[in-house]
Amino acid sequence: MNSMKLFDYATIISNKVDNYIFNTIKGTPAELYEASLHYIKAGGKRLRPLITVLACRIAGGEEDIAIPGAAAVEVLHTFTLVHDDIIDKDDFRRGVPTVHRIWGTDMAIIAGDTLYAYAYRCILGALKLGVPAERVLKSMEYLTDATITIAEGQALDMLLPLRQNVSQDDYIEMVRKKTATLFAASAAIGATLARGNEEIVKKLQEIMTYAGISFQIRDDILGLLGDEKVLGKPIYSDLREGKMTILVIYAYNKVSDDEKKKMKLVIGNRAATIDELRDVANIIKKSGAVEYANSLADKYAEKALAMLETLESRDEEALEMLKEVVDFMVKRNY
Amino acid sequence: MNSMKLFDYATIISNKVDNYIFNTIKGTPAELYEASLHYIKAGGKRLRPLITVLACRIAGGEEDIAIPGAAAVEVLHTFTLVHDDIIDKDDFRRGVPTVHRIWGTDMAIIAGDTLYAYAYRCILGALKLGVPAERVLKSMEYLTDATITIAEGQALDMLLPLRQNVSQDDYIEMVRKKTATLFAASAAIGATLARGNEEIVKKLQEIMTYAGISFQIRDDILGLLGDEKVLGKPIYSDLREGKMTILVIYAYNKVSDDEKKKMKLVIGNRAATIDELRDVANIIKKSGAVEYANSLADKYAEKALAMLETLESRDEEALEMLKEVVDFMVKRNY
Repeated sequence: MNSMKLFDYATIISNKVDNYIFNTIKGTPAELYEASLHYIKAGGKRLRPLITVLACRIAGGEEDIAIPGAAAVEVLHTFTLVHDDIIDKDDFRRGVPTVHRIWGTDMAIIAGDTLYAYAYRCILGALKLGVPAERVLKSMEYLTDATITIAEGQALDMLLPLRQNVSQDDYIEMVRKKTATLFAASAAIGATLARGNEEIVKKLQEIMTYAGISFQIRDDILGLLGDEKVLGKPIYSDLREGKMTILVIYAYNKVSDDEKKKMKLVIGNRAATIDELRDVANIIKKSGAVEYANSLADKYAEKALAMLETLESRDEEALEMLKEVVDFMVKRNY
Repeated sequence: MNSMKLFDYATIISNKVDNYIFNTIKGTPAELYEASLHYIKAGGKRLRPLITVLACRIAGGEEDIAIPGAAAVEVLHTFTLVHDDIIDKDDFRRGVPTVHRIWGTDMAIIAGDTLYAYAYRCILGALKLGVPAERVLKSMEYLTDATITIAEGQALDMLLPLRQNVSQDDYIEMVRKKTATLFAASAAIGATLARGNEEIVKKLQEIMTYAGISFQIRDDILGLLGDEKVLGKPIYSDLREGKMTILVIYAYNKVSDDEKKKMKLVIGNRAATIDELRDVANIIKKSGAVEYANSLADKYAEKALAMLETLESRDEEALEMLKEVVDFMVKRNY
């Protein structure tokens, strides 16, 4: 995080959210609950819950009434990670073996389902904190709509590699659905629990959508340039899995026919060697794709930050912190 | 169904529910939505939605305000089928190839997730029919709790075959969670949308829990004795998949050591031949397990039916139909 103050605050919220999650997600059989809580115990930045809490404060609510919603978005996020890792055949996440690697695919499917159900159970706890039923219901509606949209984004993520001529618009639609939606919902839920009006909810959603798209573009770039230890997962996994990132889409339109042929042979080929992957990564870098992707991420970041400047907040400190969070998201190099 | 009148009513409700589902579950990419709606289009008895509607009427509500909840329980049920079929490696369901067979496991995981989200979207529609927010919220709570319990039951279903000395109590707990819970929730949601009091909701839940346990025991018996065409899936699939049914648990405690050895070699062995499976099925039948399971199913059926006799209903016709539905569930031979 950029400032010490934000870092301290993020830690406080993270602890509150974790306590809430561990008090809510309990039961038997033990294997199911261990599998379900595996990633939450393994770490994570709790970026989405922080956004929920800050959005709540910006809309004039007390921090604590946002915690059930903050926990819900983190649990929902974790559910999508568990299922995505099965689909992407990823072996590591947050530096630990993935859920399906430890407990098997069948248990991982059920663990994901369980987490999703608990996201609703988390948010229902807001009733006990005095949030009116219609506000809790509205938050659950945001949670529901976000999940549908994320599932559509995940399906697009799987389908785009099978399509000819994937455009930048296709990519942005996929990224908006798969990644940005949950950032937008995190803010919407926080503001809704705070009884914020529709205008502030919509503005926050729009800001977080831009920030989320920028965040995912940087994530794709990191996947190409990043360091295995920092990523917590193997390098070049996007290439190996055949993901249609903006980098690949850009490079396909810029490189020679020979280079394109080479890319097509390696991208999505799970038997590709690390040397082949590195060669293709170099072709992509040479094409100018990284510079292009960074400029695209900058554009979305600027939109988010510009809108934040015009946002009317009931809590100036929370708005300043949200600006820092967005800044952190769109400049990420972790 | 037992009577013509109930059959006609079930058809009317089934059509209303299907219309509601097809009007609610729409979007892109097309592949995701085709996979999600595959089983709903393939047929099914819509038993759970019918229970929701009858429970609503019994608690004094109009039939139509139950349709969003009825659709939700059917969609939730379908979500569990899609994920269960992946786990059980089943190839057919309702006479058609399973979702993961047609669209692949990855898309089937996402289709299941999508359906679960849409279960909430379905129930949210009750707001537009004038159901108060706190009642819709309470219905969503039943939906959430049911899903958590079903996931626990599904995990038990996977874990019991790995345990030594599985008892009848373990089996009943698993069946209660995996199967009976959704019948109970279907009734609870209907009565809740009708603004029924806690007493009627609890009684209906208890009745449908007993009926659901009886239903699942009969289902296990049918899996051993049934005909492939009627089942819509291959015979002996429970044995091949190593399921801990009451039949297997009973037989383990009754047969000779030699027979038990034979059972252990074949049950859960996916390479077992049809002859080997038939031999083991005969060992189980000879042990008296079918008679025992039937008597156990009868006991739960009697509890359900006896409680139904004491239930105070705001709608006598609906109560009579629910009795027939329960009778149909606990005597099933389809």
